[in-house]
Amino acid sequence: MNTQILTTPQGESYPIATGSGFLPEIGKMAAEQIKPCRVMIVTDSNVAPLYLDTVRKSFADAGFSVFTHPVPAGEESKSVAVLGELLEAFAEAKMTRTDFAAALGGGVIGDLTGFAAGCYLRGIRFAQIPTTLLAAVDASVGGKTAVNLAHGKNLAGLFHQPIGVYCDTDTLKTLHPHELEDGYAEAIKHGILDDPALFEIFEHGDPAGNIEEIIVRSVIYKSRIVMEDPNEKGVRKMLNLGHTPAHAIERLSDFEISHGHAVSMGIAMMTRAAARRNMLKIDEASRIINTLKRNNLPTECPYPAKEMAEIAAVDKKAAASDITVILPEKIGKCVMQKMPVAALESLFADGLEALS
Amino acid sequence: MNTQILTTPQGESYPIATGSGFLPEIGKMAAEQIKPCRVMIVTDSNVAPLYLDTVRKSFADAGFSVFTHPVPAGEESKSVAVLGELLEAFAEAKMTRTDFAAALGGGVIGDLTGFAAGCYLRGIRFAQIPTTLLAAVDASVGGKTAVNLAHGKNLAGLFHQPIGVYCDTDTLKTLHPHELEDGYAEAIKHGILDDPALFEIFEHGDPAGNIEEIIVRSVIYKSRIVMEDPNEKGVRKMLNLGHTPAHAIERLSDFEISHGHAVSMGIAMMTRAAARRNMLKIDEASRIINTLKRNNLPTECPYPAKEMAEIAAVDKKAAASDITVILPEKIGKCVMQKMPVAALESLFADGLEALS
Repeated sequence: MNTQILTTPQGESYPIATGSGFLPEIGKMAAEQIKPCRVMIVTDSNVAPLYLDTVRKSFADAGFSVFTHPVPAGEESKSVAVLGELLEAFAEAKMTRTDFAAALGGGVIGDLTGFAAGCYLRGIRFAQIPTTLLAAVDASVGGKTAVNLAHGKNLAGLFHQPIGVYCDTDTLKTLHPHELEDGYAEAIKHGILDDPALFEIFEHGDPAGNIEEIIVRSVIYKSRIVMEDPNEKGVRKMLNLGHTPAHAIERLSDFEISHGHAVSMGIAMMTRAAARRNMLKIDEASRIINTLKRNNLPTECPYPAKEMAEIAAVDKKAAASDITVILPEKIGKCVMQKMPVAALESLFADGLEALS
Repeated sequence: MNTQILTTPQGESYPIATGSGFLPEIGKMAAEQIKPCRVMIVTDSNVAPLYLDTVRKSFADAGFSVFTHPVPAGEESKSVAVLGELLEAFAEAKMTRTDFAAALGGGVIGDLTGFAAGCYLRGIRFAQIPTTLLAAVDASVGGKTAVNLAHGKNLAGLFHQPIGVYCDTDTLKTLHPHELEDGYAEAIKHGILDDPALFEIFEHGDPAGNIEEIIVRSVIYKSRIVMEDPNEKGVRKMLNLGHTPAHAIERLSDFEISHGHAVSMGIAMMTRAAARRNMLKIDEASRIINTLKRNNLPTECPYPAKEMAEIAAVDKKAAASDITVILPEKIGKCVMQKMPVAALESLFADGLEALS
């Protein structure tokens, strides 16, 4: 088992544990962070039949009073209404400020549970138990929580750090290949941003056989960025590589295109745009595009630049009139570029042109 | 106009302005804190016809793009559902991280708006424009925000500090006497906690003729406590004097008894309990009871100790098995006392006995 310790500038510090087969020990591991108390395990209807019993027993054996709250699987549960139901469930279980919540599931469950924990009684503690690769390499680290509004994804949320992230890679074995690929997209992003060796696992290696290394390398990078900039005032924006077009793609597809797949398209767009603007060499750009393809990830975006730019302009990352986009300079290094929102359409258009 | 500056340990700093007749200048005053941008004025159906036009014009004249969102007047608007509608209104107005919200109204509007501002895009700025005495002396200062759940009041919320609190005392002239008394109860509380001169305005003086002084003295005290302890880990709990029984009283009355009136009953109970336990002299206790009565505030509680204690046990202020209550030692000084939740009933019973 690999354990990274994340410490924020506010002095919050917590372990991120990655390894195989420790799900039955999770209660004991949490008890090292928090005195046994009430715990509300939040999960979804897909994950519950697979792992809820094991996790419930694990917490109970470690001395916790266990409550459970399963929500329907899927993005629809990341809503204000489901948040309200979860808050009522906390109150129904008579949870107090010293109790805590555990998010057993993917990004939806982590984001929802973290938000609820961050505002119930103005903040109780919570732990992340990611059961998707996407959540393990990305969503569970860094304390961003959110729900969606009718007007867009993740428009309401909090920064609320967990007391621990516990990823048992055995839970990833039940994932559909499509879900694994979603995680690959974010991990490849981390490789492009900072870690050529991580990138090369996807370029030449065997990702499925190196899941733990992929998670640990992603967590190391993401933890470092979060420690430097927990509230996304500066360097943390780097993590948005590919995300400005990705959010527009998700919305235009009515969320038929999953987050990781949209991020892959977005990375491909930013890669081609950077190459076209002579910021990135053509052969490095080709390596990125080919590596995405090798891992069964899409690189062609089905929407016109204008429509994507219009959506991005109202996206939350947009300040009044400027937007920060991330562009690759080489594999392992990207730059932030602030540009007027009005310049997005031409950037996206460049990103849709084939590499020449 | 009196201006106090509140600075939290996190270095957040903002003005609390109290005075007469500056409502038409509020846009200009806000513009000293925040570059003109989009502003969503949140208000209620009682306040809107009285002051919304003035405030809207004031912000527009100062260069802001003004949006408005009135909600139905009353405690029912402090719900997760109304919070969700307000968040959608922010998104509908295409508000970004650099825009802000203004809460024009009483505590319900301030709590709701502050919560929404604290989680929209993971936090945008907001200002408080209190139009009730209760909000001016209490709710608008200190950054506590919340909505109610079906299971209880203020069970979900955030700490989110405003960029400014602007109280034009002219807006208090339209208050019903009952609403004024609600504010008196919290101000008398501040007097008992820390400020004998403030207490004496209510004991012998003319509160209605000294509203500005009452607000300023309350704000000075509350600001100091909030600066020391913004997240209520310690000394800020002093502000809960009378509130443990008050919350139970409000619930038992199905919220027919207003917050300030319930606080008055709660203060009277804690006063009698402290006297009975020889922590407070009988004559000081009588001064407190008589001062509440002189200001038309109730001192007799219609509910049995057992029922109140049961509700308080599940109240958010309760840690797993201990609860902190505040008891007066003399006018101007109170103490915190931690006790088992099981001891509450006997404390409340003492509080229901007449002074002997």
